[in-house]
Amino acid sequence: MEVKVIGICGGTGSGKSTVVRKISEVCPQFVIIEQDNYYKSADFVNNSNITAVNFDRPDAFDSDLLHKHLYTLKAGGSIEMPQYDFVKHKRMDETVHVEPAPLIILDGLFILNDPEIRKLLDLKIFVDTPADIRFIRRLQRDIQERGRTMESVIKQYLEVVRPGHQNYIEPTKEFADIIIPEGGYNEKAMSVIISFVTHIND
Amino acid sequence: MEVKVIGICGGTGSGKSTVVRKISEVCPQFVIIEQDNYYKSADFVNNSNITAVNFDRPDAFDSDLLHKHLYTLKAGGSIEMPQYDFVKHKRMDETVHVEPAPLIILDGLFILNDPEIRKLLDLKIFVDTPADIRFIRRLQRDIQERGRTMESVIKQYLEVVRPGHQNYIEPTKEFADIIIPEGGYNEKAMSVIISFVTHIND
Repeated sequence: MEVKVIGICGGTGSGKSTVVRKISEVCPQFVIIEQDNYYKSADFVNNSNITAVNFDRPDAFDSDLLHKHLYTLKAGGSIEMPQYDFVKHKRMDETVHVEPAPLIILDGLFILNDPEIRKLLDLKIFVDTPADIRFIRRLQRDIQERGRTMESVIKQYLEVVRPGHQNYIEPTKEFADIIIPEGGYNEKAMSVIISFVTHIND
Repeated sequence: MEVKVIGICGGTGSGKSTVVRKISEVCPQFVIIEQDNYYKSADFVNNSNITAVNFDRPDAFDSDLLHKHLYTLKAGGSIEMPQYDFVKHKRMDETVHVEPAPLIILDGLFILNDPEIRKLLDLKIFVDTPADIRFIRRLQRDIQERGRTMESVIKQYLEVVRPGHQNYIEPTKEFADIIIPEGGYNEKAMSVIISFVTHIND
């Protein structure tokens, strides 16, 4: 089995997950690996001291485990993918068993920052969405899904998320093979990407 | 016959033509329309007064004729495409007879600046290449193919080409559906675009 790995990178709220979801709706055989699942545990953090740890740096991730899992999947093996609890800021005890597939989609903020991952990717996509739109989406998500307050989201955004984006995400656009403005909401770009993934092993 | 129109935009030397050439190598049935062929005549210009006319503005083109030809091709008709003499800066007497095809590729500096053309395009691609690389390619082309001197190319570039790019090309990136860094030299992006065009009428 030939295994292709597509990386989807972009800032918080850029629309990466929508790109992944739209691919999943048409592509029968693939697995999604989210870099977010590979955050290191930081369970002393709670919503009142959320800025005590900087989650917006590449070293917040267990990159060794992610590399190992990507190489295993590429070689046709299965993995036990970690799960992360974003309310408690720790890795869960449960893992998800992931079987190999011809297409692997790797979705994450910092994946293009990692030279080892860049080497491994068959196609590097950067989802490029204006910063104000990205902030609005993050604000809504963190309040609705992660039990946060508006002031806490703003503080974390200005102190770490935004600088992290400028330092570690925006500059990696230059490594992208293709840049998609507005991510999964860009239907024309999605039709191009979907045409590619559905014929990837022709 | 369903006719799709793909627009390929980008600055001077961005690699647009290489994108077009690579599509032409694999896609049997398509026509290329170059916006450059639709320059208005400016035959009082010669290499010693080259900056007397600003070729780097959208109004340097016969847009009415280009719109008419695009609508005709989209409706399944044939056209007589003008030809432009870039040494004499005038439209040639000869035209090229263009038969309709299922895929039309429109290649040009200012195509995304034109709302009429944007409406007409089924996919808008912007080729995004760093300005220094673009200048170097233009310098080499204008000396080798258009009989220009280095000083004349630099003067025209600084006085009109560069401002034209900043004013009328760079801002149209926001209208693109897909951005390709480095154009036709970007093999991974080309494999995505080629997959799309070869399955466009599936």
